[in-house]
Amino acid sequence: MDWEKIATELSTDTPSKIILLVMDGLGGLPRNGKTALEAANTPHLDKLAAKSVCGLSDPVFMGITPGSGPAHLSLFGYDPLKHTLGRGILEALGVEVEVGRNDIVARGNFATHKEGMITDRRAGRIPTSENALLCEKINAFLKSREGPRIQMYPGKEHRFVVKFSGKNLCDALSDADPQKENKPRTYTQPLDNEAQRTAIMVNSFLDDLTEFLKDSDPVNTVLLRGFSKHPSLPSMQDLFKIRPVALANYPMYKGLAKLVGMATVDVGPEIEDLFDTLDEIYLDYNFFYIHVKKTDAAGEDGNYDAKKVAIEETDTYIPRLVDKNAEVLVVTSDHSTPSLLKSHSWHPNPFMLHAATAMPDGIDRFSERTCSQGYLGRFQAIYAMPLMLAHAGKLKKYGA
Amino acid sequence: MDWEKIATELSTDTPSKIILLVMDGLGGLPRNGKTALEAANTPHLDKLAAKSVCGLSDPVFMGITPGSGPAHLSLFGYDPLKHTLGRGILEALGVEVEVGRNDIVARGNFATHKEGMITDRRAGRIPTSENALLCEKINAFLKSREGPRIQMYPGKEHRFVVKFSGKNLCDALSDADPQKENKPRTYTQPLDNEAQRTAIMVNSFLDDLTEFLKDSDPVNTVLLRGFSKHPSLPSMQDLFKIRPVALANYPMYKGLAKLVGMATVDVGPEIEDLFDTLDEIYLDYNFFYIHVKKTDAAGEDGNYDAKKVAIEETDTYIPRLVDKNAEVLVVTSDHSTPSLLKSHSWHPNPFMLHAATAMPDGIDRFSERTCSQGYLGRFQAIYAMPLMLAHAGKLKKYGA
Repeated sequence: MDWEKIATELSTDTPSKIILLVMDGLGGLPRNGKTALEAANTPHLDKLAAKSVCGLSDPVFMGITPGSGPAHLSLFGYDPLKHTLGRGILEALGVEVEVGRNDIVARGNFATHKEGMITDRRAGRIPTSENALLCEKINAFLKSREGPRIQMYPGKEHRFVVKFSGKNLCDALSDADPQKENKPRTYTQPLDNEAQRTAIMVNSFLDDLTEFLKDSDPVNTVLLRGFSKHPSLPSMQDLFKIRPVALANYPMYKGLAKLVGMATVDVGPEIEDLFDTLDEIYLDYNFFYIHVKKTDAAGEDGNYDAKKVAIEETDTYIPRLVDKNAEVLVVTSDHSTPSLLKSHSWHPNPFMLHAATAMPDGIDRFSERTCSQGYLGRFQAIYAMPLMLAHAGKLKKYGA
Repeated sequence: MDWEKIATELSTDTPSKIILLVMDGLGGLPRNGKTALEAANTPHLDKLAAKSVCGLSDPVFMGITPGSGPAHLSLFGYDPLKHTLGRGILEALGVEVEVGRNDIVARGNFATHKEGMITDRRAGRIPTSENALLCEKINAFLKSREGPRIQMYPGKEHRFVVKFSGKNLCDALSDADPQKENKPRTYTQPLDNEAQRTAIMVNSFLDDLTEFLKDSDPVNTVLLRGFSKHPSLPSMQDLFKIRPVALANYPMYKGLAKLVGMATVDVGPEIEDLFDTLDEIYLDYNFFYIHVKKTDAAGEDGNYDAKKVAIEETDTYIPRLVDKNAEVLVVTSDHSTPSLLKSHSWHPNPFMLHAATAMPDGIDRFSERTCSQGYLGRFQAIYAMPLMLAHAGKLKKYGA
């Protein structure tokens, strides 16, 4: 199915508005018979469900646990099997590194080696503050060094992002990381001919940096993984003829949104800030992606109760969404994060769509199991975008 | 999935019979809480549902509103994203033009220009009778004219179909239509090299015809759109080893059926005529496509009550279908036409399949929402054909 091609042909620019509320990691598994969503008191989500059409969506396909990248791409109407986002680019987005068309980024670890053998892949998980100081020192060194522009960006503990800037760089590079300890330092290998020059450049950087750090302790080398360029995705404007904006408190989700051409705005750290900002910009766009992180963070922490609280907190703002009277209002998730698993999972997302043209299906409780009885059935999340566009009157007829 | 290739390998010729009743545009949206199908009194459809397996089918995929072409192709077991039907060919089928392998057809408007500017794209919607006389006059002129054989066929009001016959004609041609009024007359442009000769021929026809009509009022030129050749579809006989026949009162659906190799028979204008004709030819074929138009026509008119009446009328003939004791009896639709929208829509089709091997699922009411709870779930309509063939014992095992 070439949905992108079909979308380009069928989509039309209309003033109708679409609100997509993503409660990250919403789906879960039961504790004492109830998931966090089932246990939560959600009068407003339930009231909305009663007027909506419901279903369950699989982010990629059944059984596949997606990262945040493919899970969001799919919701944004992009085939997650066709468009892949390197780990480097996602990490870079997460620390707010601007990645241009001539840049390559990789994520890195500060590490410890002894006579060329990696003895600690995380250099004892150095404190984040030390990481920041180290990056500053290295950046000063890199400025004085010959060769292409290279910049380090500190992350948490031992993690960082490195950006190489220059013409004709190629990201077809293997990881410069032995993956296990007590193995020798590893150089990157070019994965095709075009990447040879870039591999030499990266390896020379690795040697120079290791030389520069030789008397430092515990960090005396670095490991690099997930080399990636800025992916060239067609924009949502071009594909769907919409004016999209992202409301998200976390940099990675703003970054993901930018990759598909969404505008981004500054939003405060609280759930309430998302809805306050929506009020301010509501007239300026016609597609609103609103990202709630707390549900996923609680799931990742294995904290069932915190997840339930995050759901209940989000529920209190649903009336503010409903009051917008957007032509289409969808509440769903990018992927499930059961607190039982403390991680993303392959379980499907509860999904509800409210629109004048939606078939009410009698589901009056928004949850994983009630949505499985909905009129939309179980579907791949890439169909969320055609559904939203159709219900917003933005898709012409296919064929005569 | 290359279902056509798989079908060719697995299908076997058996005497078992399949009846496919298509109630065009059947699905709808609620008025006062009920769709036309839900409000209709349909004792026979309901009784059949109780013995059938039910589901909801999406003609193309979720969110896509199909034209009649892709919606039917899908039901007939053809991938609607792989096989596309030009607008010209469908229009031609609708006015019963025979289109051969060496022909190109386009749909046209009689129009008015003033010194080369199109002032009325529909020439004041001239009466259909005037259209017929005009076509006759033009055809006489075209007969006397040098060049390839060209024939005009009148449609309703200002609409007609034109057929160009000759070797090596190519339909990669842009519309000869400025689309808007107060724009200059437009020539067709070849969309590839192969079409250059055809474009010159079409444009010379346009000039000669405009010259011929120069003193005529209000029609003094024509606009042409949707140039298309006869599509080369593999036949249902070859793919599925069946002997198919179409029972339809409307030319376009007979034409669609012919495109996939179905036999067609003359049928009177009433719903009852479909079933009378079925009686007459029942021994001669083993796949029967029966097309009821009234449900769609009422939906297109926005006439909920007429749609309900059309459904109830069709219901009275269901016992005559059941009495045939075909191995497989399916009742469904090609696409939805909610009277609320007065047009085709992207909503799924109610679907029921009756066969000795069908799992009865306790659904004892045939409607959109009851079918959503059926054992077949929600599926893409292209799977209707493998299901029908399987339940008719016409598909061998796939793989060892």
